[in-house]
Amino acid sequence: MGLFAYVQVHVLRLTLLCVYEMWFCCIKLLFFFSQRGQESAGIVTSDGESAHSFKMHKGMGLVNHVFSEDSLKKLYVSNLGIGHTRYSTSGVSVLDNCQPFVVETLHGKIAVAHNGELTNAVRLRRKLMRHGVGLSTSSDSELITQLLAFTPPLEQDDTPDWVARIKNLMNETPTSYSILMMHKDIIYAVRDPYGNRPLCIGRLVPVGDLNKKGKNYAETEGWVVSSESCSFLSIGAEYYREVMPGEIVKISRHEVQTLDVVPRPAGDPAAFCIFEYVYFARPDSIFEGQMVYSVRRRCGQQLAIEAPVEADLVSTVPESATPAALGYAQKCGLPYIEVLCKNRYVGRTFIQPNMRLRQLGVAKKFGVLSDNFKGKRVVLIDDSIVRGNTISPIIKLLRESGAKEVHIRVASPPIRFPCYMGINIPTKEELIANKPEFHDLANYIGADSVVYLSVEGLVSSVQESIKARQDNENSLKTNKYRAGKIGHCIACLVGKYPVELEW
Amino acid sequence: MGLFAYVQVHVLRLTLLCVYEMWFCCIKLLFFFSQRGQESAGIVTSDGESAHSFKMHKGMGLVNHVFSEDSLKKLYVSNLGIGHTRYSTSGVSVLDNCQPFVVETLHGKIAVAHNGELTNAVRLRRKLMRHGVGLSTSSDSELITQLLAFTPPLEQDDTPDWVARIKNLMNETPTSYSILMMHKDIIYAVRDPYGNRPLCIGRLVPVGDLNKKGKNYAETEGWVVSSESCSFLSIGAEYYREVMPGEIVKISRHEVQTLDVVPRPAGDPAAFCIFEYVYFARPDSIFEGQMVYSVRRRCGQQLAIEAPVEADLVSTVPESATPAALGYAQKCGLPYIEVLCKNRYVGRTFIQPNMRLRQLGVAKKFGVLSDNFKGKRVVLIDDSIVRGNTISPIIKLLRESGAKEVHIRVASPPIRFPCYMGINIPTKEELIANKPEFHDLANYIGADSVVYLSVEGLVSSVQESIKARQDNENSLKTNKYRAGKIGHCIACLVGKYPVELEW
Amino acid sequence: MGLFAYVQVHVLRLTLLCVYEMWFCCIKLLFFFSQRGQESAGIVTSDGESAHSFKMHKGMGLVNHVFSEDSLKKLYVSNLGIGHTRYSTSGVSVLDNCQPFVVETLHGKIAVAHNGELTNAVRLRRKLMRHGVGLSTSSDSELITQLLAFTPPLEQDDTPDWVARIKNLMNETPTSYSILMMHKDIIYAVRDPYGNRPLCIGRLVPVGDLNKKGKNYAETEGWVVSSESCSFLSIGAEYYREVMPGEIVKISRHEVQTLDVVPRPAGDPAAFCIFEYVYFARPDSIFEGQMVYSVRRRCGQQLAIEAPVEADLVSTVPESATPAALGYAQKCGLPYIEVLCKNRYVGRTFIQPNMRLRQLGVAKKFGVLSDNFKGKRVVLIDDSIVRGNTISPIIKLLRESGAKEVHIRVASPPIRFPCYMGINIPTKEELIANKPEFHDLANYIGADSVVYLSVEGLVSSVQESIKARQDNENSLKTNKYRAGKIGHCIACLVGKYPVELEW
Amino acid sequence: MGLFAYVQVHVLRLTLLCVYEMWFCCIKLLFFFSQRGQESAGIVTSDGESAHSFKMHKGMGLVNHVFSEDSLKKLYVSNLGIGHTRYSTSGVSVLDNCQPFVVETLHGKIAVAHNGELTNAVRLRRKLMRHGVGLSTSSDSELITQLLAFTPPLEQDDTPDWVARIKNLMNETPTSYSILMMHKDIIYAVRDPYGNRPLCIGRLVPVGDLNKKGKNYAETEGWVVSSESCSFLSIGAEYYREVMPGEIVKISRHEVQTLDVVPRPAGDPAAFCIFEYVYFARPDSIFEGQMVYSVRRRCGQQLAIEAPVEADLVSTVPESATPAALGYAQKCGLPYIEVLCKNRYVGRTFIQPNMRLRQLGVAKKFGVLSDNFKGKRVVLIDDSIVRGNTISPIIKLLRESGAKEVHIRVASPPIRFPCYMGINIPTKEELIANKPEFHDLANYIGADSVVYLSVEGLVSSVQESIKARQDNENSLKTNKYRAGKIGHCIACLVGKYPVELEW
Repeated sequence: MGLFAYVQVHVLRLTLLCVYEMWFCCIKLLFFFSQRGQESAGIVTSDGESAHSFKMHKGMGLVNHVFSEDSLKKLYVSNLGIGHTRYSTSGVSVLDNCQPFVVETLHGKIAVAHNGELTNAVRLRRKLMRHGVGLSTSSDSELITQLLAFTPPLEQDDTPDWVARIKNLMNETPTSYSILMMHKDIIYAVRDPYGNRPLCIGRLVPVGDLNKKGKNYAETEGWVVSSESCSFLSIGAEYYREVMPGEIVKISRHEVQTLDVVPRPAGDPAAFCIFEYVYFARPDSIFEGQMVYSVRRRCGQQLAIEAPVEADLVSTVPESATPAALGYAQKCGLPYIEVLCKNRYVGRTFIQPNMRLRQLGVAKKFGVLSDNFKGKRVVLIDDSIVRGNTISPIIKLLRESGAKEVHIRVASPPIRFPCYMGINIPTKEELIANKPEFHDLANYIGADSVVYLSVEGLVSSVQESIKARQDNENSLKTNKYRAGKIGHCIACLVGKYPVELEW
Repeated sequence: MGLFAYVQVHVLRLTLLCVYEMWFCCIKLLFFFSQRGQESAGIVTSDGESAHSFKMHKGMGLVNHVFSEDSLKKLYVSNLGIGHTRYSTSGVSVLDNCQPFVVETLHGKIAVAHNGELTNAVRLRRKLMRHGVGLSTSSDSELITQLLAFTPPLEQDDTPDWVARIKNLMNETPTSYSILMMHKDIIYAVRDPYGNRPLCIGRLVPVGDLNKKGKNYAETEGWVVSSESCSFLSIGAEYYREVMPGEIVKISRHEVQTLDVVPRPAGDPAAFCIFEYVYFARPDSIFEGQMVYSVRRRCGQQLAIEAPVEADLVSTVPESATPAALGYAQKCGLPYIEVLCKNRYVGRTFIQPNMRLRQLGVAKKFGVLSDNFKGKRVVLIDDSIVRGNTISPIIKLLRESGAKEVHIRVASPPIRFPCYMGINIPTKEELIANKPEFHDLANYIGADSVVYLSVEGLVSSVQESIKARQDNENSLKTNKYRAGKIGHCIACLVGKYPVELEW
Repeated sequence: MGLFAYVQVHVLRLTLLCVYEMWFCCIKLLFFFSQRGQESAGIVTSDGESAHSFKMHKGMGLVNHVFSEDSLKKLYVSNLGIGHTRYSTSGVSVLDNCQPFVVETLHGKIAVAHNGELTNAVRLRRKLMRHGVGLSTSSDSELITQLLAFTPPLEQDDTPDWVARIKNLMNETPTSYSILMMHKDIIYAVRDPYGNRPLCIGRLVPVGDLNKKGKNYAETEGWVVSSESCSFLSIGAEYYREVMPGEIVKISRHEVQTLDVVPRPAGDPAAFCIFEYVYFARPDSIFEGQMVYSVRRRCGQQLAIEAPVEADLVSTVPESATPAALGYAQKCGLPYIEVLCKNRYVGRTFIQPNMRLRQLGVAKKFGVLSDNFKGKRVVLIDDSIVRGNTISPIIKLLRESGAKEVHIRVASPPIRFPCYMGINIPTKEELIANKPEFHDLANYIGADSVVYLSVEGLVSSVQESIKARQDNENSLKTNKYRAGKIGHCIACLVGKYPVELEW
Repeated sequence: MGLFAYVQVHVLRLTLLCVYEMWFCCIKLLFFFSQRGQESAGIVTSDGESAHSFKMHKGMGLVNHVFSEDSLKKLYVSNLGIGHTRYSTSGVSVLDNCQPFVVETLHGKIAVAHNGELTNAVRLRRKLMRHGVGLSTSSDSELITQLLAFTPPLEQDDTPDWVARIKNLMNETPTSYSILMMHKDIIYAVRDPYGNRPLCIGRLVPVGDLNKKGKNYAETEGWVVSSESCSFLSIGAEYYREVMPGEIVKISRHEVQTLDVVPRPAGDPAAFCIFEYVYFARPDSIFEGQMVYSVRRRCGQQLAIEAPVEADLVSTVPESATPAALGYAQKCGLPYIEVLCKNRYVGRTFIQPNMRLRQLGVAKKFGVLSDNFKGKRVVLIDDSIVRGNTISPIIKLLRESGAKEVHIRVASPPIRFPCYMGINIPTKEELIANKPEFHDLANYIGADSVVYLSVEGLVSSVQESIKARQDNENSLKTNKYRAGKIGHCIACLVGKYPVELEW
């Protein structure tokens, strides 16, 4: 997928994070998600007592630019907070759209951070404005916050019913969102009924247990919420569980409590974004009970079954395709050998490589280990081919350096459709799968052969162990996850969206 | 008044500016108001056709930091815009409070900039939140904007009645504000019924007239609104007139039209801030038909009448007290001679001048022209003494450099009360007039004598020519300004506020 | 002289400063000389014990950018240091040319800061390179430093004879320079034999004397050297005396000692830059025993004698021409009245005021106090007219605002020749005095009349009190200053340079 | 080696680069070497005609900070230039030490960049100062430049003999340096007689050949010099050859010409730094005719022979140890499986991870792929263990995540001695190999076993193919490299330095 995808990973990844009894982790989580190219970052903390004493700091740019030591010190008034980092390639990158969003309501301040994209945002905006609310940003965040600020009819003046307000919001919009809302000393964590965006909970183990267990624990106990479980390790937290699709979780000092689960329309399967497995998530993250790395290796194994090839070695486009390459190599019994090394010194330069220098772009990102493959037939595994303009120069590079044959195997199916649920995918016209050249792709990119993983192959690689576990749980009658009908959003591959789109 | 006052000038000065047919001036006006210590700056422009195409750029810090060449180019889509710069010493200096404020309403976007402080803000906030509106900032700007976003009962869905909405707002809150509101191709300029904050209109003369008249005109015709008329000269505009207290002015391409004048409660006099004359405004600004410089010279003349002294020369604390000093010198027939020169090289350094170096502070700001006053009796005119800690080292400096006597004459009365209408005045405790030392002030500051101008002397210096003109107009039955009963807000001097304060 | 001159003031002003027993003042002096537009700044401190332990910090840009709290703390290892700030409009503004310059010699490190321009630099560079020394900068500083690093023939290996080396340097180059050199615990202060650039010494009075004398003294005793005496007040120092032309002064902890005075060629008069009086220096500075303000007032008086005019009032182009204007007004008995006020809000904007807006430039810098001069005949005093393009729009502004007549009187003669001794003067072609329009200048700039001060008038205004004092000293046989034949460099006015120029 | 080593790579790596007929590549090479933590960067370009027209830009900090688009445009006057980037952890990181260094000599300007550390620098400094040259920096660069500026006795005044000057320099100091010197239209590339620092030449193929060959060539022809050959690919250059130990190469528009080869003392073997193979260089770089990756894999194979272990899988500390891990796995027939994934999101935060959070450091850098090794016996290959404080928490992490056994195998011998030839190694006391705990290292770091590669094993892995090639060449009587006796600097491993050290 190359550089584009690298950005895309973060584009619509919400980075919700909340910390109870462990403010310091909040900062660390924030940095965990930080990276160059990032658009904005923010943290809101609460002292847990007054509903009016939020501290907020947010800004455009890299975390290291947005946060200084001073701004962090000012935030450090509490053990409770939520944060957000945002990545975007679209033009609407203004500070007003930075999260978390804070508004004052009759019952004090609430802070809201969310990930995803409301499929009926236009209708909701109009509804609010008709009520006389002026909207100061173009973001879904303000929509969500103003909907939460509305008093439901049955609420008493002095006792806010936040669950009723959240359910009211969830009834107004079916998907796609994960939300963190903070009020006084409580954080509410919510996933939409389709479970499109990820959200999971981690546990900070008390210091007292440190020596006993000998583990890398944090200094105090508490809870952490994050959109990626792999962040937990870095702050000394244990993976606890996912927030279920439609679930409203209340997180307070001592407990994590399910307040309600808003169901999907009868018969609708869940719709967790399958591209989290394919590309976005880090390999050590856990979704639906399985490690992303394992899914990717299974994709490689499945690809070896679907599209074997006679060759001398299997290799990877480092680093994201490596699990699939190792799975492919193992399944077909060929040696795994490195042919490219990543260039750690790549400068994100402002120099526009005009003219012919543009084609040096790939060479800038990779070094070639020519001694490893001279005169050999190479099977090169990539995780995805989206636009098709990065794999082509890699193949050329390998041939020039002595590869006898270059066979491309792609560990995911072709992307053909736009995403309206929070993932930044190139326009239909830019997608190689929609271009005429796709019909003779091997020739177009200069490969000896090129085969994508089938949609069925991907889905089965993803659902295999989930189904096995569910069958097992059903037989045990535990049904702990109650997630309903298994399903994943594969709209970008097949064009069928989990809900009807509104404009 | 010294440095404190220098800052205070800008603290609550709103810098409203709007430009029609002359966007470039908008930028120049913005820079006109810029200065070190400034808190935030912003500009919103409209293409004058669509109600959804505002361009906005605003940020914290100096104008030169907030605006780059790129950000200005992005704004340059039109000949219509409003801008704002803000100065604050209070802690609430967050970007969210930056103006102008833009919200989307059912009828498209509106942009609002204002100056002043609503005396009943707390009640208005609660009213809006009860209606279900979440408030995302602590600023009066958001209050004003959300009140304008509310649909009045009689308005048709497809034709917004902005005048009705503005009058509705003015009925909700009596003072203190000047407001600029932009929608599509119209700018509304509003002063509160008491006329507490200044606002005036300038005219950009067409290029065609340039050679004919030989004047410093702008390139195209149009209108300009500003809180200080002295800014007009720098952009080639002519002073046209003030916005009257309570007046709602509609400014469009070809005309300036009074839509309505909201009256004060019967009998209430106008309440323009008298400290604009004393300290805040630039001497070449015009308020109520008179030049600020002339008022200040009259104050000096009046002071010479109220508090003459036998001496050898009259001098000034440069530069703000110079008009009063020249007036005093002329009235009492003493020579005007410079004793201090301003240090152009003063570094606003981060070095804390601890210990004894603190007393060098004044020496850092002024150079001493000792040859000019050795062995002489000096009358030193200052524009105000607020805290009393800057005049004291000046006197010491003069004595050490050879002055035989130093008599202080202050061209305004002592400040004793806080301002709740937009001016940042030190706390009551910090005001020298409320301290025990005030009873023996000359001794406390080391002067041979010290006399303030009387409240009556100040008021008559300010109102003298206004009354003369009004009498003249009355006799001529023109009554062009219809400003009602003459009056000025002297709350900080006597403690009586123009409206009852709400909390 | 306008903005150009404002920059010119600083262009070649060296800002030598040294502090003994008072490091903190070093910092304050540095800030004293700082200002926007500044090119570079630097400080070197010595611990006074080892010859290898200098601390240095220097950089391009404003003092506030160059120095952070951290960099100042690192410098604070001692009570001894020299500093430099540099202003330049020429293109050669690279960091390598920043001063002070430090080199290591056989006898340890020396630090050097200087002000001025060597008239035989080209020849000296070639001489050094022929000796095998590679020169890494284009600055005179490196020349001076390498000349000081050379061992004179008679010096013993282990005892450096710095005076011999300094005299060797002074023999190699006659003018124009003032130099500060630091080695271990000694600072040497040097002025070239012609005394072209200023340099003076101040005394820091011990704290113990503070109460006794009641003066604004510094915390500890010590010595300060500066190119402008007015800087002393701001750090609590007393003016002590000037460094004489050709004098080598050794400054150590407890004494200021004259080591030698290198004479000029027999018959050559001194050649202190007369433009220090006219324009560059601050009015409260002292040169050759007289205050600059007094010289400027005398110039105004002389101008009233040379070029009287029938008018209603005398005024000034603020602020630099004010002493001359007050002198002129007093001499001819006309009232002094302000017609312009300085615009404190001038933004140094990056917006290029193309087209007609350019002519608004002056309006941006000044406000017009039209009520003060409507229908009146104005004599406007300016300190200098160099290019002639700033006075013209001022006159236009006054006429448009109602002045009946505008007579220009310039308190210095026309500049006609370039300066090769450290002052940045426009090219010959840019000088109005060398243009054809000069013959009908009043018409060209739109004045009713315009008269410059004569060269003789300027010289007598400058030398009058020096001669009086010298006569007095001669009669007293003190001859304390031994400055030889009185004289000033007026090369830019008449084209005769104090030494022959080498290329 | 962990993070420390990551920094160490760059500490003393000179990044010499020169470009003829291809200025643009110069910039790209610069960025190629850029990375966070970098200390300074600089480029000097020549127009190839005048000896006085160098353009230089250099500064402290990251390349992206040092170079702006403007500064690059100013440099783009020619097709000839040299550049340098520097990395340092020592305190002497001042701008004065930035390279390239430019000085003016009798024959015009020369620019010099170098890599390495002169072993007799102290003596050379004293020699120069005794000659009367003041030294303004503490860098070897100035030493080298001033030595080159010295006229040798036999040189005619008008024809500089640069080769004689370079040989003179090489006679004064035996090692360690690679040097690039530019004068007018010639670049000289030099390696010290011991060949301690790398330097190699690449060829830019003419555009005309692009289509014919279908290669990734640059736009114009020319030559490139770099300290790492892997940089060539990114600018479209082909590897041409190494500069030989002691060789002086003249690079002009159309040719690369050996001017001379300065020999080592009779019998001394070459002394190329062996740690370039072990750690510093990128795996796709070529030294002495072999790819670094291949050497590292051989080290892994050799390690498998020297220290086999009964286990279930072989893995790597990503990414630097991967070649050795794959070599080890292949040699001993165990599967290669990933157990850690690199955290791409690591923030170089300013937050000091005090207390127990420090031990989370490793967790922050790596994610754990626990499913891949639960219940398994792991052999973990690291490239080096220097301080021993990074491997310990990794082992703990693996155990906590389910590893049954963890055996550490290190693909290089222990470091025991300091380097005085340009590599920044921790102090002797910090090296784990010099601590008492080293005797029971497995226990100290918590491993089941730990074995380092032997010195002999490393040397033979490095020299094996060189010897084979040399034998082959000798038999063919080509002796193309004439490098003399094969040898490598292993001083940090055994304490024997290639030359006697002078102080």
